[in-house]
Amino acid sequence: MITVTYRIETTGSVEAMAAKIASDQSTGTFVPVPGETEELKARVAARVIAIRPLEPATTPSWPEAPSDHGTIHRADVDIAFPLDAVGTDLSALMTIAIGGIFSIKGMTGLRVVDLKLPPEYGAAYPGPQFGLPGSRRLTGVEGRPIIGTIVKPALGLRPMETAELVGELIGSGVDFIKDDEKLMSPAYSPLKERVAAIMPLILEHEQKTGKKVMYAFGISHTDPDEMMRNHDMVLSAGGNCAVVNINSIGMGGMAFLRKRSGLVLHAHRNGWDVLTRHPGIGFDFKVWQQFWRLLGVDQFQINGIGVKYWEPDESFVESFKAVSTPLFSPADCPLPVAGSGQWGGQAPETYRRTGRTTDLLYLCGGGIVSHPGGPAAGVHAVQQAWEAAVADIPLETYALDHPELAASLKTFGGKDA
Amino acid sequence: MITVTYRIETTGSVEAMAAKIASDQSTGTFVPVPGETEELKARVAARVIAIRPLEPATTPSWPEAPSDHGTIHRADVDIAFPLDAVGTDLSALMTIAIGGIFSIKGMTGLRVVDLKLPPEYGAAYPGPQFGLPGSRRLTGVEGRPIIGTIVKPALGLRPMETAELVGELIGSGVDFIKDDEKLMSPAYSPLKERVAAIMPLILEHEQKTGKKVMYAFGISHTDPDEMMRNHDMVLSAGGNCAVVNINSIGMGGMAFLRKRSGLVLHAHRNGWDVLTRHPGIGFDFKVWQQFWRLLGVDQFQINGIGVKYWEPDESFVESFKAVSTPLFSPADCPLPVAGSGQWGGQAPETYRRTGRTTDLLYLCGGGIVSHPGGPAAGVHAVQQAWEAAVADIPLETYALDHPELAASLKTFGGKDA
Repeated sequence: MITVTYRIETTGSVEAMAAKIASDQSTGTFVPVPGETEELKARVAARVIAIRPLEPATTPSWPEAPSDHGTIHRADVDIAFPLDAVGTDLSALMTIAIGGIFSIKGMTGLRVVDLKLPPEYGAAYPGPQFGLPGSRRLTGVEGRPIIGTIVKPALGLRPMETAELVGELIGSGVDFIKDDEKLMSPAYSPLKERVAAIMPLILEHEQKTGKKVMYAFGISHTDPDEMMRNHDMVLSAGGNCAVVNINSIGMGGMAFLRKRSGLVLHAHRNGWDVLTRHPGIGFDFKVWQQFWRLLGVDQFQINGIGVKYWEPDESFVESFKAVSTPLFSPADCPLPVAGSGQWGGQAPETYRRTGRTTDLLYLCGGGIVSHPGGPAAGVHAVQQAWEAAVADIPLETYALDHPELAASLKTFGGKDA
Repeated sequence: MITVTYRIETTGSVEAMAAKIASDQSTGTFVPVPGETEELKARVAARVIAIRPLEPATTPSWPEAPSDHGTIHRADVDIAFPLDAVGTDLSALMTIAIGGIFSIKGMTGLRVVDLKLPPEYGAAYPGPQFGLPGSRRLTGVEGRPIIGTIVKPALGLRPMETAELVGELIGSGVDFIKDDEKLMSPAYSPLKERVAAIMPLILEHEQKTGKKVMYAFGISHTDPDEMMRNHDMVLSAGGNCAVVNINSIGMGGMAFLRKRSGLVLHAHRNGWDVLTRHPGIGFDFKVWQQFWRLLGVDQFQINGIGVKYWEPDESFVESFKAVSTPLFSPADCPLPVAGSGQWGGQAPETYRRTGRTTDLLYLCGGGIVSHPGGPAAGVHAVQQAWEAAVADIPLETYALDHPELAASLKTFGGKDA
């Protein structure tokens, strides 16, 4: 049994809308047709199993209701789909239980807020190949967050220019570096040339210090064959990670890649916000992330505390909880990646609100590379912020004898604290 | 140069938001970083090239604005991205020009309303393999719409039960039959068994009458390898068409399939509505359909007049125009598929509002199979409705000496006319 929870909003009857979803998404059509017997229906019919009324809405989420609409009723509705009717194919699940629902007339809002899959899904999908343990093993980082940074500007650097910046970042002691998600393989920076310019620096540093910085190359491509060529290029050059724009390549691209992958797959979810930003429409992250975890995301970007984007802190905290909660086994948890406007100042609140864990990749762009003392000082400052967070020492106190953190507070502290 | 038009909604400055999109989606970061020079920026920077103010909104599309928000400004903003900065990869285009925009703080709504791609995109993608001419050639239908129907109920029939219905539909003279998009390969109806039960009927009918009914089998699968096995199964059994749930498989799945396909690819866009239903958020179909046409959709479902869904007629008319307008050449136009609640009664308005063309697949579910005289009478009625539409004869008049149409008017006419 697959159970989906829909948050229904309608000026009509919530019960009628729930019944319509169940009917349309399994056996429904607009008039009775020959051959449609009760026995057939019962075999595969979705069933409404619970309706939990919510406070009415004041404004319709979809502005379709006439201006003299009466009460806008809301409820969370659980609908059960027999596993036999859907199977374990995620694209079938998406099509049957979700795809068509947003087209149904008579609702003024609809959001998928929960999804409970049976264990058969756990068995049918590979899940993360590396996840938290693989990311820790490959970076050699234990007992604290993996600290990462991003090569900026997002676009425009030629491979040798990128490599020059990367060389400096490697020297900073950072654990992880990534291409901006918008950098894949444009004419001015073909992936092949970028790999050729960067990987020798990573390997040389490893030879000298024993520390192999994890570098995530942008390998996304619409054509899965081409994406695999990108993957192979990174892997054969000694790389161990890739940025994957999961929404752009889609579930097919992700499934294809994961089956053949030897790289840690770092998921960027750009495009996701359009599916979640309106609270009455679309998806909760808790639902949507299940698809990508089953497909094999190893590291999942979920924003952070005090980000530069629209997403409120509470939503990040919920997302962190979602990706850290096993679906079927702890092995299906990806490594949460906190990023966007991070510089260390958000470490205490991140730590406090995510269950006092250091099992995350903490991604700082400008917070590291724009530190007044340079990137190495930036990395130290971030590590110090996390030490303070774990020890429950206020950053300002810890900064008294940690000058790099003190400089960060001075430079970035106006933004958050 | 790639030009994207964004419909921006903000309580702040439209100009500032436009500049932020251009900056964030190309070279932006939150603080200046070493190495970021003006020369680099200029090479790949997106540029705001036009701002056309619109009437203010009264209600914010995303309910983030405080209740004492002032004027909600709106404008259509054209932003140009240098082709060299993006390249021709559609997933790069989606990520760079669209993916991240919906996360930007300070807007209360954002919709991508136009997209102008340079000819390099036309050269980089295969487009439809069959489209209109291929669909006409394979069905042998000229001078009128291709008439199609759908096996219902959506789910629950075993292969032999489906074949029984299909046998009756083939005998009705219909040109095209499809699996419901929600039917792929569940345990109770594995695709292999469905193909084995149905294709002999199609081929036998072809042998007897010379008419080969186009049957679209649901081959979608998350795993592109598995989807190709489904494709091959249909092709080797003599089939010539497949239903593809494009949103569920994603651009990667679609690109992979098209490269290897010998089947007409009939796209079902379930899931699309969540991206377009709120008029202030998401995408116009005009934009989104370009991705799928370049990737190779042959037949594109776009609803119809008087549908059972939320979508207004005007939106269908716009969609019809979009898919019928060449991007780079007439060969990149898919066959428009009008469906949902169709029974022939909508033929006159469909014909009148789509440029008086019969170049479409007109898909009727219950409108054919629930005709009181049986499916053959249903098909006749639909053909008669189109004859009347093309001849500018009111349906009621034409029905006077066309009893099948008369019966349809009596049975379904309360719904629309």
